[in-house]
Amino acid sequence: MRTIDINCDMGEAFGPWTMADDAFLMDYISSVNIACGFHAGDPGIMQQTVKLALGKGLAVGAHPSFPDLQGFGRRNMQLSDTEIYQLIIYQLGAIAAFVKIENGRLHHVKPHGALYNMAAKNDGMANAIASAVADFDASLILYGPAGSALLSAGKAAGLRTACEAFTERAYMSDSSLAPRTLPGAIIEDKWEMREQLINIVTGKPVTTLDGQSLVIEADTICLHSDNKHAKIFAQEIVSTLKEQQIEIRSL
Amino acid sequence: MRTIDINCDMGEAFGPWTMADDAFLMDYISSVNIACGFHAGDPGIMQQTVKLALGKGLAVGAHPSFPDLQGFGRRNMQLSDTEIYQLIIYQLGAIAAFVKIENGRLHHVKPHGALYNMAAKNDGMANAIASAVADFDASLILYGPAGSALLSAGKAAGLRTACEAFTERAYMSDSSLAPRTLPGAIIEDKWEMREQLINIVTGKPVTTLDGQSLVIEADTICLHSDNKHAKIFAQEIVSTLKEQQIEIRSL
Amino acid sequence: MRTIDINCDMGEAFGPWTMADDAFLMDYISSVNIACGFHAGDPGIMQQTVKLALGKGLAVGAHPSFPDLQGFGRRNMQLSDTEIYQLIIYQLGAIAAFVKIENGRLHHVKPHGALYNMAAKNDGMANAIASAVADFDASLILYGPAGSALLSAGKAAGLRTACEAFTERAYMSDSSLAPRTLPGAIIEDKWEMREQLINIVTGKPVTTLDGQSLVIEADTICLHSDNKHAKIFAQEIVSTLKEQQIEIRSL
Amino acid sequence: MRTIDINCDMGEAFGPWTMADDAFLMDYISSVNIACGFHAGDPGIMQQTVKLALGKGLAVGAHPSFPDLQGFGRRNMQLSDTEIYQLIIYQLGAIAAFVKIENGRLHHVKPHGALYNMAAKNDGMANAIASAVADFDASLILYGPAGSALLSAGKAAGLRTACEAFTERAYMSDSSLAPRTLPGAIIEDKWEMREQLINIVTGKPVTTLDGQSLVIEADTICLHSDNKHAKIFAQEIVSTLKEQQIEIRSL
Repeated sequence: MRTIDINCDMGEAFGPWTMADDAFLMDYISSVNIACGFHAGDPGIMQQTVKLALGKGLAVGAHPSFPDLQGFGRRNMQLSDTEIYQLIIYQLGAIAAFVKIENGRLHHVKPHGALYNMAAKNDGMANAIASAVADFDASLILYGPAGSALLSAGKAAGLRTACEAFTERAYMSDSSLAPRTLPGAIIEDKWEMREQLINIVTGKPVTTLDGQSLVIEADTICLHSDNKHAKIFAQEIVSTLKEQQIEIRSL
Repeated sequence: MRTIDINCDMGEAFGPWTMADDAFLMDYISSVNIACGFHAGDPGIMQQTVKLALGKGLAVGAHPSFPDLQGFGRRNMQLSDTEIYQLIIYQLGAIAAFVKIENGRLHHVKPHGALYNMAAKNDGMANAIASAVADFDASLILYGPAGSALLSAGKAAGLRTACEAFTERAYMSDSSLAPRTLPGAIIEDKWEMREQLINIVTGKPVTTLDGQSLVIEADTICLHSDNKHAKIFAQEIVSTLKEQQIEIRSL
Repeated sequence: MRTIDINCDMGEAFGPWTMADDAFLMDYISSVNIACGFHAGDPGIMQQTVKLALGKGLAVGAHPSFPDLQGFGRRNMQLSDTEIYQLIIYQLGAIAAFVKIENGRLHHVKPHGALYNMAAKNDGMANAIASAVADFDASLILYGPAGSALLSAGKAAGLRTACEAFTERAYMSDSSLAPRTLPGAIIEDKWEMREQLINIVTGKPVTTLDGQSLVIEADTICLHSDNKHAKIFAQEIVSTLKEQQIEIRSL
Repeated sequence: MRTIDINCDMGEAFGPWTMADDAFLMDYISSVNIACGFHAGDPGIMQQTVKLALGKGLAVGAHPSFPDLQGFGRRNMQLSDTEIYQLIIYQLGAIAAFVKIENGRLHHVKPHGALYNMAAKNDGMANAIASAVADFDASLILYGPAGSALLSAGKAAGLRTACEAFTERAYMSDSSLAPRTLPGAIIEDKWEMREQLINIVTGKPVTTLDGQSLVIEADTICLHSDNKHAKIFAQEIVSTLKEQQIEIRSL
């Protein structure tokens, strides 16, 4: 039976503020990327999220970010590659500590938001991230978009990598995600999401926002926990993959 | 030959701001307590300080704190014991990550400032800290003042502990440090510091600020890096201990 | 016709995280206390909340706090009176700037959370707050609990003050609010809330959690926006006061 | 007698960390730009710096920045123009509050670091800053580099503007400052600095780092307080301007 991983960003509450219904969504996925306190999350939320995820048998990953709580890590920042390397090490250490005290093992790393998007296209940043991951724990899997500088850097650093695809975001013909500001960039319709999912997992091309055909490689599918349809989409993904006889399983 | 540890708080710069001359002082001590980003330090400073300390063969410890950069971790905060536990785990993970990538091994933990002083007297906080240290890495040594709740909690958690004494601070008859606001609380004179050092390491009583005699147990002596006489005191401590035929060596 | 003010803490979102439904609740109240970025709020949320409140004709006040986003300003911190004075000035300036560009006028100041509770009992802190308010703008009204050090300090500083009462919190016989940890401290039942409201506005005694009778003076009633019954309570307060022929109007 | 303003960034300490010797340098300048807590400064430092500057009769300005303490506001951040507008309002309000309680009057605004450099070339950001300044207090003078988008936006918003020139930084032929990473970008030699100062104030061209001649317009000269030669340069500027019979006076 074929398998695919479904991953979700979690632990993105902060202090008194909540974000997604992590406990609900965890029943529909196989791996979690947990915020490390730089764009979201705090020590209490990190411990609670790690515990919950391990209790449900999920693969637990780090979700490091630029230091930007107010901007939720979604604003580009120009940091030196050395600064990038160092903030990855810091955040990996912090989340790994919670995984350790809960008797788990850190499984993967997926950079967050602006850091993810910038590193997809910037070799220096990508290498900084990949080196940090490899130096900290060479057994960690690095998630990134297919064909990105991030995954190339991961492979060059000797890391196992995973291609991440998106079912609720339209693609451009150059394989990048359509910017959120473009009409149609965010897929709101369940059936459209379902169709893109099926195309991705069966290796069929999707139609890009600029009208081309694009085959999207995927080892893991991202479910956005902060999407307003997250719960419905989660259920639809699970039932669709069951129909397609594809098992949801972490890498 | 008898031995004693000399420890010093380091990596207490932040961003563009410097604090002490760590590189100079490292030649006079045997263990360092490195700030973890909550009262001082940032990922860059942490890496640099860890690297420098390991390069000089020093025992590298964590110096976790309340989350209070502006107040340098010196302002009391009322956090729950669970919050204390969690912020210790977070900071231990972060600093341990830098020690790991520099091929070292974390050696000890010394809480900083207000956290240290409050935990010395508060069983709940002391237990939270000791549990966090034991859960993260039971081989770590916990530094604290002789007779404190912190050291009791450390022992109860199965940790190795170290009594810390101060040569540039006057004591009160209850073994606590005289508050910095009292005249004479801070020892500015090299000869007075030297006398207190000799009394401590030879097991003779010191005269407390309230006029009593007090024998102070010491496995490790703290050198305050932010003391204006830090460099001179560092040199005096080394020469005095040499005279006393006591070797400076980490625990 | 008698009048009373209903105030509500607002603008307590932060970055991507929401808190209460401010726009809804604003229709049931006469004054708002807007977070200033230290326990909640950021420049964007502050501008939006000020604009909304002024648009609805509400009296706009400052809701300054300890610098503690993660703890939502609810954790006690030991700051010097000078530090308290200075952080009040800073926050008053910031919120007043948004009021100014929206062509409004800052109306009052209500300290938040731990700062409010500590200043209610601590003369030094109360004086620091009152002096800051008076120095910044002597026409501002200072909100605080009846009989508190905060209101005394406000009067001594020449400020107009307002006694604040709570309808969803049980009182102790010493006029303080029952600690949230005690059973019965938070009033969850609409009818019980209504009864306490009627007693307060008609000058009848309420029964304290420790079984005494207590008359509670009130110029303003606090509606907690983060209470899970906030919307229902808001509507009940409005209808009850209408029945009692008391007009809701800012001071 | 001709006059020119000498301005200096000040109040750039933070918490326990010091930066420049503000009190010393204030004797050589006519206007100060005071950090507002986003890249440096805290409420205590702001009050102290405002007080000191007003006591010495200096023109007191705001020095707002991106929210980036660790990076000292020197790292580019991609914020929306609305976010820029709002963080300027917030910081202007905060610093103006300290000026107000010390019975002064805010005189000008000079954006800091990356915000200054980006706004010099980006119309959207420049307009956001200029609008915020004009909306907050239309009598404030906006400092920026000659020929920049920032000054154009200031004029378009109806503000009085001031061209700022640098004597310790080499220029490029397009009027921009040579990047700090280029050899020769920072002028370390007193005589070279003196020559550039004389050229600027007498309207003679300077030689740019790329070998062209450039006349630099200047209403105000920036003295970098964090330059290691700041004290010597300050004294040299004063004596040179005296020789040139140019009075140092704020705008």
